[in-house]
Amino acid sequence: MSVLRLECTKCEQTFAPGKVWNLCTACQAPLFARYDLERAARTLRKEALPGRERSMWRYHEVLPVDDPAHRLSLGEGFTPLLSAPRLGSWLGLQRVLVKDESGNPTGSFKARGLSAAVSMAKALGAKAVCLPSAGNAGSALAAYAARGGLEAHVFVPKDIASLFLMETRAYGAHVETVEGLISDAGRVCAGLAKEHGWYECATLKEPYRVEGKKTMGYELAEQLGWTLPDVILYPTGGGTGLIGMWKAFEEMEAMGLIGAKRPRMVAVQAEGCAPIVKAHAEGKPDAPMWQGATTHAHGLRVPKALGDFLILRAVKDSHGTAVSVTEEEIVQGTKDIAAAEGLFVAPEGGACVAALKKLHAAGDVKPEETVVVFNTGTGFKYVENMAPLW
Amino acid sequence: MSVLRLECTKCEQTFAPGKVWNLCTACQAPLFARYDLERAARTLRKEALPGRERSMWRYHEVLPVDDPAHRLSLGEGFTPLLSAPRLGSWLGLQRVLVKDESGNPTGSFKARGLSAAVSMAKALGAKAVCLPSAGNAGSALAAYAARGGLEAHVFVPKDIASLFLMETRAYGAHVETVEGLISDAGRVCAGLAKEHGWYECATLKEPYRVEGKKTMGYELAEQLGWTLPDVILYPTGGGTGLIGMWKAFEEMEAMGLIGAKRPRMVAVQAEGCAPIVKAHAEGKPDAPMWQGATTHAHGLRVPKALGDFLILRAVKDSHGTAVSVTEEEIVQGTKDIAAAEGLFVAPEGGACVAALKKLHAAGDVKPEETVVVFNTGTGFKYVENMAPLW
Repeated sequence: MSVLRLECTKCEQTFAPGKVWNLCTACQAPLFARYDLERAARTLRKEALPGRERSMWRYHEVLPVDDPAHRLSLGEGFTPLLSAPRLGSWLGLQRVLVKDESGNPTGSFKARGLSAAVSMAKALGAKAVCLPSAGNAGSALAAYAARGGLEAHVFVPKDIASLFLMETRAYGAHVETVEGLISDAGRVCAGLAKEHGWYECATLKEPYRVEGKKTMGYELAEQLGWTLPDVILYPTGGGTGLIGMWKAFEEMEAMGLIGAKRPRMVAVQAEGCAPIVKAHAEGKPDAPMWQGATTHAHGLRVPKALGDFLILRAVKDSHGTAVSVTEEEIVQGTKDIAAAEGLFVAPEGGACVAALKKLHAAGDVKPEETVVVFNTGTGFKYVENMAPLW
Repeated sequence: MSVLRLECTKCEQTFAPGKVWNLCTACQAPLFARYDLERAARTLRKEALPGRERSMWRYHEVLPVDDPAHRLSLGEGFTPLLSAPRLGSWLGLQRVLVKDESGNPTGSFKARGLSAAVSMAKALGAKAVCLPSAGNAGSALAAYAARGGLEAHVFVPKDIASLFLMETRAYGAHVETVEGLISDAGRVCAGLAKEHGWYECATLKEPYRVEGKKTMGYELAEQLGWTLPDVILYPTGGGTGLIGMWKAFEEMEAMGLIGAKRPRMVAVQAEGCAPIVKAHAEGKPDAPMWQGATTHAHGLRVPKALGDFLILRAVKDSHGTAVSVTEEEIVQGTKDIAAAEGLFVAPEGGACVAALKKLHAAGDVKPEETVVVFNTGTGFKYVENMAPLW
């Protein structure tokens, strides 16, 4: 079995793999999967990778799901890392790269985490899965549940764009709209999960979504010839991707694939919902619930992240920072990258472009540094939501 | 230079590469690029491919654009060939595969052809490019033009979904809506192209879009271990992809990558616009203009294809067929593949699922045959268009 044990990210208590776990039973913090990295390193070698499958499962030694037949895959991951020379030159930077997650199944990076989590749910015997979502996680859950023949239940805020409802229901999922934010949807979901015995896939509430997401870190290293960029800008709602990449860097170093150098991790949020930015500025180890959260970038409308302390720790340890941008800046960022590079990105991607402008203006990025901007999803799913602002 | 010459697909007259050509100057038929395949075969070897880049440019020996610096790429191609076991079992077929083009840049297979064509336009010195479009070709043209810093002009039918206008304009293109169908838009485009000296990228009116599209054929072979499927279902509007794959099979055989066996090529159309189906049934070598064309699958609303004789020839020579489906069947096909496999496909992809049902019911596909269904784009771009039918 590739996963040796599950380990609490706070109190380090360990749990045996092979059965369903959610949060740490002692301290209610998220669990991380831990692998025998020495064994993994024997086959996960740089020279072995080029011939492997064109999906995140190319790193199967450090992923859960041992039996390939149990992997529910729609071709997620191994997305392009695009050079953005025209955008870079507009910004006065020499090497801007875009990790473009828009081509993933269901149109966003959520596919990675949910491919891993739903595969594990099925392997562990679950018949039904559920989560609260701003939209993309719900549709990804539903797609992989369809692929695996599982029942899916998705809980979304009432103001969600109608496309997500149509898509998620097309996959056969039950979708319930909830008054309020994703945190409110989460409460309803958790209650019903307990009542019906559904496998709960809320962000970091089970240990495998972050495993799928961490593959973004492996891909960056592989695509950059086993080096890492100087700076990574990541749109941070629940923050699983940022947390996952930070975990991936640690694993890769332990396996001898990269050295000790780390990128500066920049958490990008919207001014209307910036709990991480606030907590980072105040030097706090965790981020209290943000009151009155609002932004059109629905993936960033997460008032309280379960992994707040992990995000803040990675930002701090990497000498990175956290930046917020306005709604107008998000729209302008989206327009800039479309006109410069032909990429129609999600507003969360636009937020990172806007944040990069700010960082550069503040002298926090040097012109010669290698900067990776994440676009976490396609803009096509946000047209209903964003069009009024254009 | 990889392209040796351009050759008329009707009268076989040849033209020197390295300058702008549209249709054959003698007979007005489309031109094909011809390569030194003996030379290409020396490096385009099966064992060389696994380590190559994850895009259609992995087959660069048989693509135009010699200087890699001239390739305008957003990571197009090398899309997943997904097994569809649950859909297959619903249909009573043992091996159904989906070539899923939805993850391409700009969300459709159009990215392939326009990556090649716009790259060549720029390499040949063009400052502005143009085409008529049902939506996806226009947005792909605009994206690659943005990437290359070229001016783009797109002509679309007036009833196009608003998303395409927003997307295409975000890339900086000039978009003009035209009363009528794509054929009407084509007339306006051709007139203005002549007047202003724009490089015209209408389907098969220049020789390079089909080169990008043909890579779908190379990928099928590579992904199937250098064999070809028994049957290919392809949604056929302009038909460049079908024509391109047929050309690819010929090239691959000449290079010794595959044998003489060919798949049966099935052209799928909508009942409201089925010129190829009609011409095939009547045994004609070309397909007259279809009157009163109508279908919600806008990519299939092509009343007259410039390459009609090439489509009909490939269908006939492959012992394939041409099938039309109703609007209700298209919607049902789209719903079926979403619920069975977690794929939210374009209506053109849904049409192929529906056509496969018909073929199977008629005994035209055997249960043990390997069948590839094409999904040419993401369903996200069609929500405005299709939602009223759901």
